[in-house]
Amino acid sequence: MIKMMSSKLKNTKRIEGLDSNVWVEFTDLSADPTVVNLGQGFPDIPPPSYVKEELVKAMAVDKMNQYTRCFGHPSLVEALSKVYGKVCNQKIDPYKQILVTVGAYGSLFNATQGLIEEGDEVIIIEPSYDCYVPMVKMAGATPVFIPLRIKSNVGSPTSSGDWTLNPDELASKFNSRTKAIILNTPNNPVGKIYTRDELEVIADLCIKHDVVCISDEVYEWLVYTGNKHIKIATLPGMWERTITIGSAGKTFSVTGWKLGWSIGPQHLIKHLQIVQQNCVYACATLLQEALAQAFLKDFKRMGDPECYFNSLSRELEVKRDRMANLLQEVGLKPLIPEGGYFIIADVSSLNVDLSDMKENESYDYRFVKWMIKTKKLAAIPLTAFCGPGTRAQFEKFVRFCFIKQDSTLDAAEKILKSWSKQKS
Amino acid sequence: MIKMMSSKLKNTKRIEGLDSNVWVEFTDLSADPTVVNLGQGFPDIPPPSYVKEELVKAMAVDKMNQYTRCFGHPSLVEALSKVYGKVCNQKIDPYKQILVTVGAYGSLFNATQGLIEEGDEVIIIEPSYDCYVPMVKMAGATPVFIPLRIKSNVGSPTSSGDWTLNPDELASKFNSRTKAIILNTPNNPVGKIYTRDELEVIADLCIKHDVVCISDEVYEWLVYTGNKHIKIATLPGMWERTITIGSAGKTFSVTGWKLGWSIGPQHLIKHLQIVQQNCVYACATLLQEALAQAFLKDFKRMGDPECYFNSLSRELEVKRDRMANLLQEVGLKPLIPEGGYFIIADVSSLNVDLSDMKENESYDYRFVKWMIKTKKLAAIPLTAFCGPGTRAQFEKFVRFCFIKQDSTLDAAEKILKSWSKQKS
Repeated sequence: MIKMMSSKLKNTKRIEGLDSNVWVEFTDLSADPTVVNLGQGFPDIPPPSYVKEELVKAMAVDKMNQYTRCFGHPSLVEALSKVYGKVCNQKIDPYKQILVTVGAYGSLFNATQGLIEEGDEVIIIEPSYDCYVPMVKMAGATPVFIPLRIKSNVGSPTSSGDWTLNPDELASKFNSRTKAIILNTPNNPVGKIYTRDELEVIADLCIKHDVVCISDEVYEWLVYTGNKHIKIATLPGMWERTITIGSAGKTFSVTGWKLGWSIGPQHLIKHLQIVQQNCVYACATLLQEALAQAFLKDFKRMGDPECYFNSLSRELEVKRDRMANLLQEVGLKPLIPEGGYFIIADVSSLNVDLSDMKENESYDYRFVKWMIKTKKLAAIPLTAFCGPGTRAQFEKFVRFCFIKQDSTLDAAEKILKSWSKQKS
Repeated sequence: MIKMMSSKLKNTKRIEGLDSNVWVEFTDLSADPTVVNLGQGFPDIPPPSYVKEELVKAMAVDKMNQYTRCFGHPSLVEALSKVYGKVCNQKIDPYKQILVTVGAYGSLFNATQGLIEEGDEVIIIEPSYDCYVPMVKMAGATPVFIPLRIKSNVGSPTSSGDWTLNPDELASKFNSRTKAIILNTPNNPVGKIYTRDELEVIADLCIKHDVVCISDEVYEWLVYTGNKHIKIATLPGMWERTITIGSAGKTFSVTGWKLGWSIGPQHLIKHLQIVQQNCVYACATLLQEALAQAFLKDFKRMGDPECYFNSLSRELEVKRDRMANLLQEVGLKPLIPEGGYFIIADVSSLNVDLSDMKENESYDYRFVKWMIKTKKLAAIPLTAFCGPGTRAQFEKFVRFCFIKQDSTLDAAEKILKSWSKQKS
């Protein structure tokens, strides 16, 4: 019997309406071991062997089992300072301009809580990684949405690069209440890599309106032939107003290590540090030490093809192309991603009968639930990454993750091909 | 050159005034390797060997490097459900009544953000672990303080049990705005273990005023001869209104793993889960898996003396007694702790000349900084755990951590004895 007053059982205001989470929902749906899971974005390929070896070495040192520095284990912030100092071609202070967090997720949380105030507006580009909106709301701010749109000179889009921001539409979203814009390049779920021209449009508006840029660049190394990842923080006038977020999970295929980082000027990072010290205090020491050593190894060979920063994208490009061909073969319309490890595809041309599925959900949710149930293949519906205003624009798409072993992709291929045969 | 408007460089309101952190400050001060550090509460004894072995085993499984369930790795919540089901003598649902967090710190954060609303009052017992106050403030609530006081029948206190809450004073702190009380037993920094009578006074007030109890029990296994740890959640009417917080760091001497948990009724835990899914999402998989296996090992031998839950406190009791004798020998007045791994001592009788130290700091801050600088021995000033209202009551005390190797305690002994000799 619950005696507590109902008023004390309600969510606090800051988390009202933030209950649902696509990962919680679809991880449960995909838990059946007979389901081939191309849903949640984690590699089922093993991490590089030297990453695991560095963890074994760290474990041999007893003090690595104890607390380390709140804002980042010293060897890790120093390694990050070296790597990103080289990438950005500028000196980065390991102790004042870097904060190690519980995944990139933790960086996004610290940034929204530390920089975004009740009443602020934050511009979010749709489709966007699904945690941006609840985090902005939890900080008491209003998300202001702008969708990627198909370029005017493109008929039917075939590449993530065919989708772009309309500069005038973007400009119309900035006003005196705008505190920040959240950028994600390479983008999840679409796989778009913003070009220098596109970034300059965003940068000019940030500077003109004195706005912070929170740049989620967790897929920074996963860039396919013909594309180039540019950090918006390296554009003139942008370092001082940009938080750049990275991820160990995405960089070294260890999403379960839950380590990420924010890099930026001290006058911004210091606010994120205060959130960290009042929220989780510090991250796991052992994992930070192993990550530091892995970074140092790849730092020494940053130009070489064997450097994991370069080799992983070569390995993935083969999987991307395989997945794109497969989706096309069975009658879906994939959008070839320029970066990241997801591919989205228009599934509407399949004309699947979804009449058995819940009526009040959007097309893509019904489609994915049907596909998991009937075909034992899991993906993620694209409107998980959209607000209600743009649902109609994106609900024909679903997202597949292709950072998977060949055996997993073989299993997906078998499902898709037999499905295709049934249709014809 | 910083071009950003100064209004955009300020802390957000929720973290205003929460900049300073005793651990950040004293970890820096104690970083000199010639300083013997009895400050921050982490073991320099190694964790049990089977805990390390379980981590090696977990590492051999590639998928343990990838994301796991948001609210806790399945094997860990199931192990926790077994252990605490036995401790509490009731069934605990691993998926609905347990949340695994980034340390007990993360549990405290999720509880304050998920349950405490702007305008609420939260009762905090002083001296208290230092993160309670900023976390309550970050949730927009007002901390209401009540100090532990020396029992009326005690002249000069010699045990942590000589300090207690005055029931009438405690009752006077509850009103219609009171949302929660934060309890910490065994207590840090004093080492007090609340008796059943003391807990009943708190429980009755919680029930009468329909208040949530956030019970930080991270030192639950560190209980010394003659004392008994009682979970307030097991008192009649309390399960439904209590969040009980535990810590892997304190349970298995692995503070650097940063794993903790909250246990409570689903109607409270669900709010903490929403915070978690919008804050860090999940905890490190590898470490959760190893912790689960370690728990299962000790679950099977919970009554035995070799069970780590029992053996660690035996090992520590010897260190506690050694430290108490040593402090007494050199002229300090220690308060023998009933539990935990800290001992506080009144240092005022030493009459140290602190005239060289910063005038605007309290006595204990000046004393500890002087001790680090002059004697190369680090401790933590007790007023780090107090608000300004009770500073005068506690500023003659400093806190020493005794979960240290004998060689570390030898080094501390050498310093204290040579100091004592200089005086005489």
